[in-house]
Amino acid sequence: MQTLHVDLGERSYPIHIGRGLLNQPELILPHLKRKQVAIVTNTTVAPLYLEKLAQPLRDAGVKVIPIILPDGEAYKNSATLNLIYDALLENRCERSTTVIALGGGVIGDLTGYAAATYLRGVPFIQVPTTLLSQVDSSVGGKTGINHPLGKNMIGAFYQPQVVLADIDTLSTLPERELSAGLAEVIKYGLIRDEPFFAWQESNMQKLLALDTEAMSYAIYRSCENKAEVVAADERESGERALLNLGHTFGHAIENAMGYGVWLHGEAVAAGTMLAADLSRRLGWLSDDDIKRIVAIFTEARLPVHAPALGVERYLDLMGLDKKVVDGQIRLVLQQGIGKSLVSSEYDAQLLRETLAIAA
Amino acid sequence: MQTLHVDLGERSYPIHIGRGLLNQPELILPHLKRKQVAIVTNTTVAPLYLEKLAQPLRDAGVKVIPIILPDGEAYKNSATLNLIYDALLENRCERSTTVIALGGGVIGDLTGYAAATYLRGVPFIQVPTTLLSQVDSSVGGKTGINHPLGKNMIGAFYQPQVVLADIDTLSTLPERELSAGLAEVIKYGLIRDEPFFAWQESNMQKLLALDTEAMSYAIYRSCENKAEVVAADERESGERALLNLGHTFGHAIENAMGYGVWLHGEAVAAGTMLAADLSRRLGWLSDDDIKRIVAIFTEARLPVHAPALGVERYLDLMGLDKKVVDGQIRLVLQQGIGKSLVSSEYDAQLLRETLAIAA
Repeated sequence: MQTLHVDLGERSYPIHIGRGLLNQPELILPHLKRKQVAIVTNTTVAPLYLEKLAQPLRDAGVKVIPIILPDGEAYKNSATLNLIYDALLENRCERSTTVIALGGGVIGDLTGYAAATYLRGVPFIQVPTTLLSQVDSSVGGKTGINHPLGKNMIGAFYQPQVVLADIDTLSTLPERELSAGLAEVIKYGLIRDEPFFAWQESNMQKLLALDTEAMSYAIYRSCENKAEVVAADERESGERALLNLGHTFGHAIENAMGYGVWLHGEAVAAGTMLAADLSRRLGWLSDDDIKRIVAIFTEARLPVHAPALGVERYLDLMGLDKKVVDGQIRLVLQQGIGKSLVSSEYDAQLLRETLAIAA
Repeated sequence: MQTLHVDLGERSYPIHIGRGLLNQPELILPHLKRKQVAIVTNTTVAPLYLEKLAQPLRDAGVKVIPIILPDGEAYKNSATLNLIYDALLENRCERSTTVIALGGGVIGDLTGYAAATYLRGVPFIQVPTTLLSQVDSSVGGKTGINHPLGKNMIGAFYQPQVVLADIDTLSTLPERELSAGLAEVIKYGLIRDEPFFAWQESNMQKLLALDTEAMSYAIYRSCENKAEVVAADERESGERALLNLGHTFGHAIENAMGYGVWLHGEAVAAGTMLAADLSRRLGWLSDDDIKRIVAIFTEARLPVHAPALGVERYLDLMGLDKKVVDGQIRLVLQQGIGKSLVSSEYDAQLLRETLAIAA
């Protein structure tokens, strides 16, 4: 097991990465205020992993309240959030009750937001069971839900007490979701870590085969990259925006196609290609860089072509995005592999050209 | 105008107290990230004060988005919260848009919670228009909504950029609401400031008559007391719980009678009398102390008798309260006027006797 410490002053916490972590209650017990936890999970994850996590805790004398939600991005909304509140209240959970998220990004976001807002905040533990949530939602404290008018529009910054990233849970992950998680791994290389990107070029087949050593390294280094960015900018005013490479385009794609039709990582991959295309038009990325990016996404079985929504629809959907300042669309763009910047200083016509070739 | 500085490190902010503040946009302008605000208010306050606040801002070049909600505690729920989110999204409000709460405690709590959670947090300004909200919700950063199973069960700690407590707005406040606000003023004397309590005994008629000097002093000293407590304990783990004198009983009363039937301050007054009765049974308050408390509440036209709900119903309702640790009901009790403590170390039978005489 490896442990990464996310340094956020009094909100610091450890991320444990390895195999068999669900069955190690000693990683959780020191963080409990009292021996009572609510485990929030979904109908897909519950039959696979709920008892693996719950039984050792019960054996250690912890009262476990399971809260099982429907599965899917479509349920990341206020109605599902209310199911969590209702269950916590019906079980008279108090401020000393710890809420544990067991599942992927949707469960983590929903549960973290419920923990942030139930009784104005109760302790929270993350047990991410998808690669995407292990490398992305584990770090940064972003929680929230979707609104009919936009993704992640309602939420809070809220840090967990501890994160357990158990690689064993990836063995039941559908291939498509594994690839979607790799999109975020690739992102860290692209935005700030060229050596990591080069390592991925040599190790993508091992990652796809769930090789223990390679996967542990990829998760650790992804979280480390994200933690460095977040520690410097917890509330997303500056550098943290780089983590949104491909996301402004990606959110537009997810929104237009209907949440859950494209996986988040798939939309991010296609969105990253749009950002790369615009960066190339600005003269910041070479044709060779583009080839490397296309190659790695393709090897990771990710889409490199965004859907044809039309320029105006893209612009409209992007205008609702949170990364907008004074009506200008700020985008994360690249200046080579491993180097990125946030800019609204680009020729609007070039953005239209990029969007026009989508599809 | 007097200004009190609430010291919370990087979340510090000023409270301005005086007359004619709505018409002083220069108190707001320095706090705006961009010249766009959403003013959230209700159908009662809007005709009285919305334009008084909005027009000077518009004259200063600020775009004003009014959001007018139905009035009443019954609307402090997720449905009304969604009306705010919808309006912010429909107007494409961004992270640089400041949200202003113009109204009483319900508007302040709802709006503050919307500001805390919209796009994971946007800047927030409080313009409280009731005495209760001026002396209570102005300080402490508590925001939130009610749940069908309990009051203020969902929320966040979120600090404003600035608070404007304009005494002019009290001139349109119904007499009953003025008294409800005085319940919280009296509370500060009771829990930690005997000289302030004694001052109130001499000045209650001036306060009821809205004497400018007396009212400014009462608001300033109430906020000062609360700010001292909150600065020492922003997230309510210790001393801050003293601010809940009468509230555990009071919330039970509000809940049982239906939100809004008893005003919050009325329920707090009756709840404070229950806490005082239990304190007397414990030998911590003298009969003379009880007489002084009854006298000041009575002079302030507040109820001193709690409704007869029955002992079991009280205990059941109190068991859902946030101030519960490990199943024990912790209560704020008094050890003389101006001295209070939080305790679960009391004879449960004495609590039952106190509840049995309610009514």
